[in-house]
Amino acid sequence: MTPQRPEPAGLTRRGLFLGGAAGLGAAAAVGIDRALSSPAGEAEHGSAVEPFYGTHQSGIATRPQAFASFYSFDLLPDVDRDGLRKLMVILTDDAARLTQGRPALADSEPELALIPARLTITFGFGPGFVRRADADAVPAWLAPLPAFTIDDLDPAWNDGDLLIQVAADDPVTVSHAARMLLKDTGSFATLRWLQTGFRRAAGSKPANATMRNLFGQLDGTVNPEPGTAEFDSVVWSDEGWLSGGTSLVLRRIRMDLETWDQLDRPGREQSIGRTQDTGAPLTGGEEHDEPDFEAVNAVGFPIIADYAHIRRARSDNPEEKIFRRPYNYDDAPPSSTVSNAGQIFASFQARVDRQYLPLQKRLDELDLLNEWTVPIGSAVFAIPPGCSEGGFIGDTLLA
Amino acid sequence: MTPQRPEPAGLTRRGLFLGGAAGLGAAAAVGIDRALSSPAGEAEHGSAVEPFYGTHQSGIATRPQAFASFYSFDLLPDVDRDGLRKLMVILTDDAARLTQGRPALADSEPELALIPARLTITFGFGPGFVRRADADAVPAWLAPLPAFTIDDLDPAWNDGDLLIQVAADDPVTVSHAARMLLKDTGSFATLRWLQTGFRRAAGSKPANATMRNLFGQLDGTVNPEPGTAEFDSVVWSDEGWLSGGTSLVLRRIRMDLETWDQLDRPGREQSIGRTQDTGAPLTGGEEHDEPDFEAVNAVGFPIIADYAHIRRARSDNPEEKIFRRPYNYDDAPPSSTVSNAGQIFASFQARVDRQYLPLQKRLDELDLLNEWTVPIGSAVFAIPPGCSEGGFIGDTLLA
Ligand code: HEM
Ligand code: HEM
Repeated sequence: MTPQRPEPAGLTRRGLFLGGAAGLGAAAAVGIDRALSSPAGEAEHGSAVEPFYGTHQSGIATRPQAFASFYSFDLLPDVDRDGLRKLMVILTDDAARLTQGRPALADSEPELALIPARLTITFGFGPGFVRRADADAVPAWLAPLPAFTIDDLDPAWNDGDLLIQVAADDPVTVSHAARMLLKDTGSFATLRWLQTGFRRAAGSKPANATMRNLFGQLDGTVNPEPGTAEFDSVVWSDEGWLSGGTSLVLRRIRMDLETWDQLDRPGREQSIGRTQDTGAPLTGGEEHDEPDFEAVNAVGFPIIADYAHIRRARSDNPEEKIFRRPYNYDDAPPSSTVSNAGQIFASFQARVDRQYLPLQKRLDELDLLNEWTVPIGSAVFAIPPGCSEGGFIGDTLLA
Repeated sequence: MTPQRPEPAGLTRRGLFLGGAAGLGAAAAVGIDRALSSPAGEAEHGSAVEPFYGTHQSGIATRPQAFASFYSFDLLPDVDRDGLRKLMVILTDDAARLTQGRPALADSEPELALIPARLTITFGFGPGFVRRADADAVPAWLAPLPAFTIDDLDPAWNDGDLLIQVAADDPVTVSHAARMLLKDTGSFATLRWLQTGFRRAAGSKPANATMRNLFGQLDGTVNPEPGTAEFDSVVWSDEGWLSGGTSLVLRRIRMDLETWDQLDRPGREQSIGRTQDTGAPLTGGEEHDEPDFEAVNAVGFPIIADYAHIRRARSDNPEEKIFRRPYNYDDAPPSSTVSNAGQIFASFQARVDRQYLPLQKRLDELDLLNEWTVPIGSAVFAIPPGCSEGGFIGDTLLA
């Protein structure tokens, strides 16, 4: 089960860490060694590390990093179960090293690997991947979402067999890690799409403050809190090979800044049910106070309207909960006056069918926010559990 | 000379700052006021501010921020000198506010403006802009660079009448500021191209450490140091309306990571003349030690080869110096195994003809680095001086 991988330019693990001179000048090897063992190149955020091995993959309960890029791949036709295992062994090895601030095996730019900046690398399997691994192991919900009336999906942003989420507080770290991972998928899969997202930089705002999306809204106020029993029951699966894993629904949602900009502030706040500045419910208080969905105004209308996003997104059924971990995107606009921005909506939940779908159906039926938002991409992945040292991501399915 | 600009959604300066209720709920106005005056949403890096008014524009001598986006515009045919003045008054007003962490006039997402994160907004004028302002005022060097044999220019990345460089340590800040500026150029110009660049995040590495480019090289070791007499004489012009300003050469240079990855470490180091890990000259010492260009090896060859980038980029003529302030780019690759990465090479110098051109000609004739790098875009701008309060950027040309 040892992976077979090319080791170009003589940059082997031995060469890098033991100062071996296999094709690499000994002086240079020593130099890298020095750079690796010295914290000289690091500062406050740069050296922070998230764990790689564990019950769950990192990058889910992890406090969201400033940058996340999502890569979706199509498997090549001839990759069988054995090939999938090889692929995941290689990618696990890359992730285990890179997330800890160590160069990948045969890393061509090892110096770029030395600032982990809370790098996490999270893998997801699309229906095609699981089917090829074991036709009987495909969860019933692991399929494209049904079509919604609000959707205007562009196939360029849909689906995929394999997903890699690469997230860190430093964009150079993301860029380098992604390149190493992309190179190692090359013999197994082709890139289907890639989405690049961002939030506030680390240190720009208090680490636990809610993020603002590009509409200017506080986005993430009501969300299960990692470390709580609620989070664990919302997010982690207990079914078969996926036990300790979860599911990811990734929706690329265009946010129409042009029309949103024409809407006045009361209009904006009514569409959500919260104020834009503090994020407090329209029924008063602070950001984290409970909205009063019963309260009515002087003329008897509900203060949080029937069509308000937070009313529609909430359910009395405790099962219908998801954990949202979205990122902003803002790509090159077609012209000065039209933007190309929105949200990479990423939600994790144990089961797509019981938790995500009823919620999305309600929002599809009625949600004033739909006036300014359009889903343009959609994908569903099974996120396998974490692995222990010696194992690999996906081993509960592939071992 | 008061600019005429739309003030949609009733969000006027009065509404925002004086709590006036012109079309804006008074409660909301108070809310924004509160958010504006309280530092609650800020942390270490977020509240850091770079000056806007001054002899020189910011964003040049400013310690490079983690993110820079470059927007190039074509002026609409009917914009005359008066129109240019209006445009620059409006953009100056936007920049003066946004860089100080205050919403733009009629800012539709004022909350996004409250984290300046060292935001700078720097304006440049292409030949078309200056010609329209005053046909006699066009510096002789303000024109597209001559064609070089190494070039493979794509018109999609060339030239432009107006350049805006938006740089900050936070990507949400850049995104929001750029949107405000783009909206305000809409009646005067159309977007020609946009390039998005990044470096290490603030706090990832010591603030004054040299950045690494995507080849893994320390890039910026030998560069005039802001605050020194050398910097001032290299960068600031003393000619006419441009006095206190400078010029910007912006080259989009593709870096072929695929072929670079096949090159071994000694080969990489010889192409530059420095080691990859510490950035020291191949003739020894530390990063900032002087290279010994005379030193030869055992068989009599120069240790820093004739074709080495640092030998070719250096001149005995003290006039032939530039100040480099480059950014990495890493855009969506066409496939998993091929990258779409490189450098947004940005250099500032008082005169393009005397300083930049001789250097670029030498590199065009011989520079081993050309094997792995290809200029795919090129633009030259005059960067007007800064302005004082009450003035506007470009007023020495347009007032
Ligand atoms: C671009 C599209 C979207 C935007 C701009 C948006 C924005 C917001 C905002 C501002 C809030 C209130 C603050 C908070 O609790 O986070 C919110 C709440 C919420 N949103 Fe969204 N949202 C979007 C799409 C979605 C989608 C697609 C779903 C699920 C299918 C969703 C589910 C939720 C949930 C569950 C809440 C919390 C509701 C509660 O208070 O219980 N949102 N969203
Ligand atoms: C993607 C293209 C390029 C790459 C990767 C690159 C990389 C480097 C590196 C690694 C160094 C050595 C460290 C340092 O002093 O910064 C350097 C030095 C330098 N480069 Fe470049 N460079 C590129 C293009 C250019 C261009 C287009 C110019 C000017 C036309 C230029 C001018 C210089 C200068 C003036 C130096 C300092 C030389 C000295 O030691 O005096 N470079 N470059």
